[in-house]
Amino acid sequence: MAKIAFIGLGNMGYPMAGHLLGAGHDVTVVNRTPAKAARWCDEYGGAQAATPAAAADSAEFVFTCVGNDDDLRAVVLGRQGVVQTLRAGRIFIDHSTTSAVVAREMAAALAARGIEFLDAPVSGGQAGAQKGVLTVMCGGSERAFERARPVVAAYARACALMGPVGSGQLTKMVNQVCIAGLLQGLAEGLAFGQRVGLDMNAVIEVIAKGAAQSWQMDNRAHTMCQGEFNFGFAVDWMRKDLGIVRDEASRHGAQLPVTTLVDGFYAELQARGGGRWDTSSLIERLRG
Amino acid sequence: MAKIAFIGLGNMGYPMAGHLLGAGHDVTVVNRTPAKAARWCDEYGGAQAATPAAAADSAEFVFTCVGNDDDLRAVVLGRQGVVQTLRAGRIFIDHSTTSAVVAREMAAALAARGIEFLDAPVSGGQAGAQKGVLTVMCGGSERAFERARPVVAAYARACALMGPVGSGQLTKMVNQVCIAGLLQGLAEGLAFGQRVGLDMNAVIEVIAKGAAQSWQMDNRAHTMCQGEFNFGFAVDWMRKDLGIVRDEASRHGAQLPVTTLVDGFYAELQARGGGRWDTSSLIERLRG
Repeated sequence: MAKIAFIGLGNMGYPMAGHLLGAGHDVTVVNRTPAKAARWCDEYGGAQAATPAAAADSAEFVFTCVGNDDDLRAVVLGRQGVVQTLRAGRIFIDHSTTSAVVAREMAAALAARGIEFLDAPVSGGQAGAQKGVLTVMCGGSERAFERARPVVAAYARACALMGPVGSGQLTKMVNQVCIAGLLQGLAEGLAFGQRVGLDMNAVIEVIAKGAAQSWQMDNRAHTMCQGEFNFGFAVDWMRKDLGIVRDEASRHGAQLPVTTLVDGFYAELQARGGGRWDTSSLIERLRG
Repeated sequence: MAKIAFIGLGNMGYPMAGHLLGAGHDVTVVNRTPAKAARWCDEYGGAQAATPAAAADSAEFVFTCVGNDDDLRAVVLGRQGVVQTLRAGRIFIDHSTTSAVVAREMAAALAARGIEFLDAPVSGGQAGAQKGVLTVMCGGSERAFERARPVVAAYARACALMGPVGSGQLTKMVNQVCIAGLLQGLAEGLAFGQRVGLDMNAVIEVIAKGAAQSWQMDNRAHTMCQGEFNFGFAVDWMRKDLGIVRDEASRHGAQLPVTTLVDGFYAELQARGGGRWDTSSLIERLRG
């Protein structure tokens, strides 16, 4: 069993760190709001450290699950950051969704100290984190991946190496782009069906068997028709992810016409106070 | 076993009429190009009639699977149309994808002669028609539906009554709207992934297990990445269907921002000679 530092106990990190402890690892947690780390220790029984540097000092694996690129930079490179103490030969696994640029930047900074970095964003949402059935998309070396995989298995149903550092983030971006267009198509179809007076339970039952089927239809179509959005993956988080992919796309000259449009729709939902609503709330905009 | 007239032996109607014959029904076919009806008779062994009126004269069920609203009007109301001969108490089942308006118009014209009408568009594509596993979305009376269902079973895996006349068409429209946005999202995601140099087989394997999963991803993502579009549901047909739903939406004040955008993308593909390509060819537009 390994000595682990886990930094960032948000909706995802909190239960993920719990699964690591449950798998028998020696886990020390750090959180920006220390009270939450204290609560985690009460619930699961691990140790708490005051700073990333303190937690990383004796760790074999450092895990992060933080908000954005700048949060990651601070945790790694800051005055109390992981690089101050983490030793050569250790592994750093970042589960945050960030840009591929910052992933490569962190990998380079850590490589200079003999530490291997994996960017490892996840999909499966808060429910997947709680149940320990996340999908993990990794970028990094085969060697680091093979060392990390048995540890990550504590909360992952699937864990795949996608290519060099940054490839995990890029794969997550593909995922989010696919979902954005899919959800808007679903929203337009369902809102149209409601508007013309169809029995939407019957419609969903029929069309979910054919070429319009999707995970989102199977899991969100009924709640969309009922206007329930108080769960799932929040609009605020999706906007962060779409911002990252739009930046990356513009650097590569990749066109994202519908993704860009949908990102604007999510901005409208934020302006209406829907930042914490599930991403399927796109249908709300279409109700006149 | 029933006496059936089947009008319209296109990509869908040709195998559907074959399944009716295979189920033991007495099938007489009519096609705008008579040589195709003759070929059908050579292949399956049914009878050929020269006009809809001639085929409908002694039929218990009349089936149509034609191109558009005007084709349907001509087959029903024309000088050699079905209304000239079809008797009271018979059932007319239209498998074409049309507007809900023309469905109601045909139902009224036929009702005046004591004939019941079902609008019954299908999904499942040419492959579904050949294998006899279509999904059929019906609008009409419960009584007509119950009489038609055992006959339609010859080529349907699912057959559902969605509501009064027109409801089958409206359900098909919901289906097509969902697919339009879904396919564009998938196209943008995959084109982005290719542009940034990801191993797309690995990406598809990972993301198809999560919230981005769809029938289209399972069945089209690999061919999209490979640029293969010589199969499936054609851009020309999708444009017809999206035109119908856009008309219907504007009558009801329903918003279809992404559907409208995607319809324009399909128009671009037609202009590039891609009218017969599969609808997944949206990715082709995104390749610089």
